[in-house]
Amino acid sequence: MTLKISDIGEKELIRYIISNFKSITPDDTAITPFQDNNLISTTDMLIQSRHFPENMSYFNMGFKAVTVNVSDLAAMGAEPFGFLLAIALPKDLELDFFKQILDGVLKACDYYGIPLIGGDTNEASEIIITGTALGLTDKPLMMDTYSKGDLIAITGEIGHAALGFEIDTFDNIYTKKALKPEARIKEGLVLRDFATSATDITDGLASELYTIKKDGCGFMIHEEMLNISDEYKQLAEDFGLDYLDLILNVGEDFELLFTITKENLEKLPIDCIVIGEVTDSDVIELTLENGFVERMENRGYEHYVSE
Amino acid sequence: MTLKISDIGEKELIRYIISNFKSITPDDTAITPFQDNNLISTTDMLIQSRHFPENMSYFNMGFKAVTVNVSDLAAMGAEPFGFLLAIALPKDLELDFFKQILDGVLKACDYYGIPLIGGDTNEASEIIITGTALGLTDKPLMMDTYSKGDLIAITGEIGHAALGFEIDTFDNIYTKKALKPEARIKEGLVLRDFATSATDITDGLASELYTIKKDGCGFMIHEEMLNISDEYKQLAEDFGLDYLDLILNVGEDFELLFTITKENLEKLPIDCIVIGEVTDSDVIELTLENGFVERMENRGYEHYVSE
Repeated sequence: MTLKISDIGEKELIRYIISNFKSITPDDTAITPFQDNNLISTTDMLIQSRHFPENMSYFNMGFKAVTVNVSDLAAMGAEPFGFLLAIALPKDLELDFFKQILDGVLKACDYYGIPLIGGDTNEASEIIITGTALGLTDKPLMMDTYSKGDLIAITGEIGHAALGFEIDTFDNIYTKKALKPEARIKEGLVLRDFATSATDITDGLASELYTIKKDGCGFMIHEEMLNISDEYKQLAEDFGLDYLDLILNVGEDFELLFTITKENLEKLPIDCIVIGEVTDSDVIELTLENGFVERMENRGYEHYVSE
Repeated sequence: MTLKISDIGEKELIRYIISNFKSITPDDTAITPFQDNNLISTTDMLIQSRHFPENMSYFNMGFKAVTVNVSDLAAMGAEPFGFLLAIALPKDLELDFFKQILDGVLKACDYYGIPLIGGDTNEASEIIITGTALGLTDKPLMMDTYSKGDLIAITGEIGHAALGFEIDTFDNIYTKKALKPEARIKEGLVLRDFATSATDITDGLASELYTIKKDGCGFMIHEEMLNISDEYKQLAEDFGLDYLDLILNVGEDFELLFTITKENLEKLPIDCIVIGEVTDSDVIELTLENGFVERMENRGYEHYVSE
């Protein structure tokens, strides 16, 4: 049988590309030794029908194209220094919408303190935005350099964007997070000196935990530490959704997921939410609020025998 | 009337983006002062239906995605140091074709001596490849720093790709140039020390001349200096095409177009073809083989009174 692109997950295809990176250490991004420093470089292509909710403004499409790339720099503890934009547009799109997208890109660049250092435009049947972000760090923050006993933490509540994608109104924290997420650059720069590892949550907590998992180590996440509000649970129920599924398997919040020693947690000068710890179980588990322990699955999770 | 994307040329849209570059000098690419050097960065998006001839192999699609970006570095006299790849693929594309594209990208990176330092994949209705190339130069070679009296030259014959797009067989120099163009990196590095200005010919000689033209200066190009062979003229005629139109208005050869003083031309250690000179006419002209002088137009050219 001939294998098609659809037979292989996107992560697998990216892994195949990454396996061809040379003279660098692949992590969230590529790391290239560069004049007594490390150049951190990353590229992300966003396609309208896949990455932009229907109610997202053109401005926010541009803003998000910068955020998703800069978030990869944040996860490496890198200081961003430039962004490149390649954009394809339908030929019957109003020119003003293009300007709104570009305005979103430029406002995001301002927000993250970086110049636009490259641009290209093209024609396509839908809006496609490829961003490339560059940063520097003297100490790249890797994703799998944690040890057993480290605490697992996040820079802010997760699952908001996931719920926001389901809600049509604009005046709530969930929709705001879904439509205009922000990268945790300042937090990444602080974590560089305190965390033992870090990545950003784009595909959902479960997916990221499976990405960073290394042989012999496991993770225990505690539902009660995820700070899930009654409002959140109620809204999820109203929309006929499983709140834990939203929180574990959607992502798009662009919070950082990091590990830290207990000693460093006390000294950490930024807010964070501790959600679990690194174990030697070799599996990824979730302790539910009712005390039961589940195996967390990659996209969804399945129950297994426990108390 | 509401303006649409189709009412504005692609170059105009790119110019609009470039006008928003900050703290850099926009030229062929962005130039960012960087640790006692200049970072040269450029991004180009290629879309299957627009940029890849139907008989182009998957390998050559990948190779070309690197070449078009690296060519922008060559035009700046920059030493390339890295390439990032974002690629969208139809979900029913054979996985092996993806590997062939990636192989083309990697072989091109090898050819230009640079590592792959970033990657992303996506799903789209056709193949879309966004490349980003990074380079360094202590002396950026700008596109409009020529003076009256400078000679105008190119690094190799042009119009080959234009003719190659029309020919279906693989065993001729034209088709080879159309399907696997190569960027003039080594030439760009040499020209940095000899030329007064440079750009690369992607959209055709006429288009590039109009791009680099500044107020008060003009260009006189001599048809006889373009070295157009009888074979070339005959093939164009066989295909019902105007050979001068092919040479002036198609491009895709990725040769460098540069200006140089007469003194430096004598010392230049690489081959080149002098095709004209910088004038103070404020217009772009072409002296035909029959001695008549035409105004060269941006896409096409029109006759005007002369002799």
